[in-house]
Amino acid sequence: MFITNPEIEAYLKSLVHINDSVLEKMENLGHKLNFPIVDRLVGNLLYIITQIKKPKLIVELGSGFGYSAYWFAKGLEDGKVVLNDYKEENINLAKKFFKEGNLYEKAIFEVGDAVENAKKYNNIDILFLDHEKSRYLEAIKQLENNLSKEAIIIADNVLWHGKVIEEDKDKKTEKINEFNEYMSANFKTSILPLRDGVLIALKK
Amino acid sequence: MFITNPEIEAYLKSLVHINDSVLEKMENLGHKLNFPIVDRLVGNLLYIITQIKKPKLIVELGSGFGYSAYWFAKGLEDGKVVLNDYKEENINLAKKFFKEGNLYEKAIFEVGDAVENAKKYNNIDILFLDHEKSRYLEAIKQLENNLSKEAIIIADNVLWHGKVIEEDKDKKTEKINEFNEYMSANFKTSILPLRDGVLIALKK
Repeated sequence: MFITNPEIEAYLKSLVHINDSVLEKMENLGHKLNFPIVDRLVGNLLYIITQIKKPKLIVELGSGFGYSAYWFAKGLEDGKVVLNDYKEENINLAKKFFKEGNLYEKAIFEVGDAVENAKKYNNIDILFLDHEKSRYLEAIKQLENNLSKEAIIIADNVLWHGKVIEEDKDKKTEKINEFNEYMSANFKTSILPLRDGVLIALKK
Repeated sequence: MFITNPEIEAYLKSLVHINDSVLEKMENLGHKLNFPIVDRLVGNLLYIITQIKKPKLIVELGSGFGYSAYWFAKGLEDGKVVLNDYKEENINLAKKFFKEGNLYEKAIFEVGDAVENAKKYNNIDILFLDHEKSRYLEAIKQLENNLSKEAIIIADNVLWHGKVIEEDKDKKTEKINEFNEYMSANFKTSILPLRDGVLIALKK
């Protein structure tokens, strides 16, 4: 099962010119470790949304070693991006990459439970969900009051390898379907079939 | 050849709740006349981009009977959307739908050559290309100075039924490939594999 025709996806990738050796290193590390990163198609979209929105505060849940946060940081004019990961090892790698790319001052680094850490922040302009997939719905419910009035919520992997349309769903997939339905009913929501599915939503 | 898995596309459509009888009428008319409209997945995305961007002026090239413009108008707070079509009959239909949806005051209606008509406007915040596909590149080159500094360019059908990846391309497809390459090299560009391909770009 694929979401987007793989040849179309390859064509789209061929059109993203990143010219950033740090991002390329991060991509290579992701492939080497088989560590899930959003890839350059989604990263580039996050960058463009950031450029349009001009947020002061971006909070990520589930930053890994900082690949998506790095794209957000590149798009920022004068705001900050908060990285959150439960593994200190990942956050240390992220710090290294952000220093190397001269983006360290644009970032705040947090280790621990992503939702709990995010609760410390208010007026979040972009909330990016990329942590444990079964916890997306819980996250949005718990953090709704921490969002600015015109915040954008972005969530990755909401098509979950296409499993959301399978008849026989596992527990995690059911949770993702539930999240997609909740967002579609309660927010202004668009789901893009980009890579593994990217949800973009605004408050009603 | 398909761009997005059709079952995934159906799932995404099932999650767009439009609750607007005029939009539904327009969709029915599009299907009845076999007239190409952007469909609700793309329409909803145009609405969300408009809500994020808060443009004062949106200019469309190739409005047909106003389906995409209607989504833009719904997203506007206090700006205007300019509809352009070479057929007066289409623009008259659009006027009827905009009146029925109480959006008439948000729109300016133009009949004639889309690029020539668009040249009358300055500080365009969103330029939407949906006219003759082989003229996209010409349009962006001729209208670049009519865009506001932080304008968003959106173009529909940039994957052209997937023909952009075929070995043996017809003239029109070649022009679309050329447009995609030009935009990727000279703008900050993301192409989304939504329906027939939606390009979103900002000036560098």
